[in-house]
Amino acid sequence: MEKINVIKVGGGIVEDTDSLSQLLADFSHLSGHKVLVHGGGRSATKIAASLGIESQMVEGRRITDEKMLQVVTMVYGGLVNKNLVAGLQAYGVNALGLTGADINIIRSHKRPTKCVTLADGTKQMIDFGFVGDVDCVDGQMLSTLVQQGVVPVIAPLTHDGKGNLLNTNADTIASEVACALASFFEVTLTFCFEKPGVLRNADDDSSVIPHISEKDFHQLTQSGIVAGGMIPKLENAFQAIRQGVKKVVITRANHLDGQGGTVIE
Amino acid sequence: MEKINVIKVGGGIVEDTDSLSQLLADFSHLSGHKVLVHGGGRSATKIAASLGIESQMVEGRRITDEKMLQVVTMVYGGLVNKNLVAGLQAYGVNALGLTGADINIIRSHKRPTKCVTLADGTKQMIDFGFVGDVDCVDGQMLSTLVQQGVVPVIAPLTHDGKGNLLNTNADTIASEVACALASFFEVTLTFCFEKPGVLRNADDDSSVIPHISEKDFHQLTQSGIVAGGMIPKLENAFQAIRQGVKKVVITRANHLDGQGGTVIE
Repeated sequence: MEKINVIKVGGGIVEDTDSLSQLLADFSHLSGHKVLVHGGGRSATKIAASLGIESQMVEGRRITDEKMLQVVTMVYGGLVNKNLVAGLQAYGVNALGLTGADINIIRSHKRPTKCVTLADGTKQMIDFGFVGDVDCVDGQMLSTLVQQGVVPVIAPLTHDGKGNLLNTNADTIASEVACALASFFEVTLTFCFEKPGVLRNADDDSSVIPHISEKDFHQLTQSGIVAGGMIPKLENAFQAIRQGVKKVVITRANHLDGQGGTVIE
Repeated sequence: MEKINVIKVGGGIVEDTDSLSQLLADFSHLSGHKVLVHGGGRSATKIAASLGIESQMVEGRRITDEKMLQVVTMVYGGLVNKNLVAGLQAYGVNALGLTGADINIIRSHKRPTKCVTLADGTKQMIDFGFVGDVDCVDGQMLSTLVQQGVVPVIAPLTHDGKGNLLNTNADTIASEVACALASFFEVTLTFCFEKPGVLRNADDDSSVIPHISEKDFHQLTQSGIVAGGMIPKLENAFQAIRQGVKKVVITRANHLDGQGGTVIE
């Protein structure tokens, strides 16, 4: 089975000119089949603010009303995605920018109103608005494109098949795409973020845990070494492994070659 | 040779909710192979204004500085393009949104500073900024996509292969795409605008000239019946015919079936 790398990069990396240049160079030098999934939340917040639209977050997720949907459609589907595509083309990477609506790649449904426990402990019914939970990814079509030498660059937008675009978490899209490709390729899924991996000591970048098994994970959460936002990231990773992804790597964007970072397999 | 329709719709049509709904329905009912090319200038002007960026036009072309390039990338590549794609998917049309950068479909170069005669008769050197003049369209790749049942939806953005997106006139893109597809299909190129065709009397919508030959065109311009913005539109049409396009139609958006309008062939 041929190998493929699915790389997810957060908004912080694609929105800073220097780190974007570095990413374009690193990603283009990565050999073999590859897919890039990107965020763009910081730019969305900034552009929304310039347009006088306030960003509202609950549980780290953006409440997406009609106006905010327009902003994320512009920023994720246009600004961030097309600059990545043009930048990669300059390196000879045959990038194709996609949202979930394009060639019906990722179908989702609008998230139902949900009871959420807020930071102050109170419970509240939250309507996330135009936010999509993924139903299916067309792995066959993505695989066909990849086999033709195309490098999909995927924005965190999906569609419901009824004409609505939906804002969708980029980590989730990366996992779902990786799982859908697992029938066709040996998949390595890499989550790039601002730290060099999962740290034993949050203040010490040299304390990367090189390998985490599902058993380790339970111990690490019970002892409080792994906490906060890293818990859903790792749960996501184990789920991907259970669904056929060969390896998940959590690392810094400048370690796309799979050296270093925390490996889950 | 199989037939294909290349349809160009202006910003006015895709930016109004009612005319957009009508366009989606009409375009989806069009049988056979098809490509949609869209504008979006009015939305770009509106969003730019909301962001405090003034739109400057010379000879009907937008001066595109770095900030304006960001706006058109968001609006053309994101907002307008992705809403069209999601809207068409709801009709079962397998739309794929593209800028010229995606899979390197349309390569262009930045327009050099140009001497322009302004409305008041004075001449001035104008730097249009990040505006692209088309060098080549990958007709082979577009043809392959179309043969796979994909319907390309093309935004008026191209790239220079050096990492820069460039703002490019949508009429020009439609003509260039039509010409590039002429080696693979029998192409009908339809320009949709607010009038039912080229009119003998600008104030009388029933005075559509049904057919214009190149000989007629010279007579019509000399007599002043065809004037203003219609001249470059028709010159464009004749050039497309000379480059292998079978038929050019100038009509209203609600006449996509090729009935009515002005025909050039």
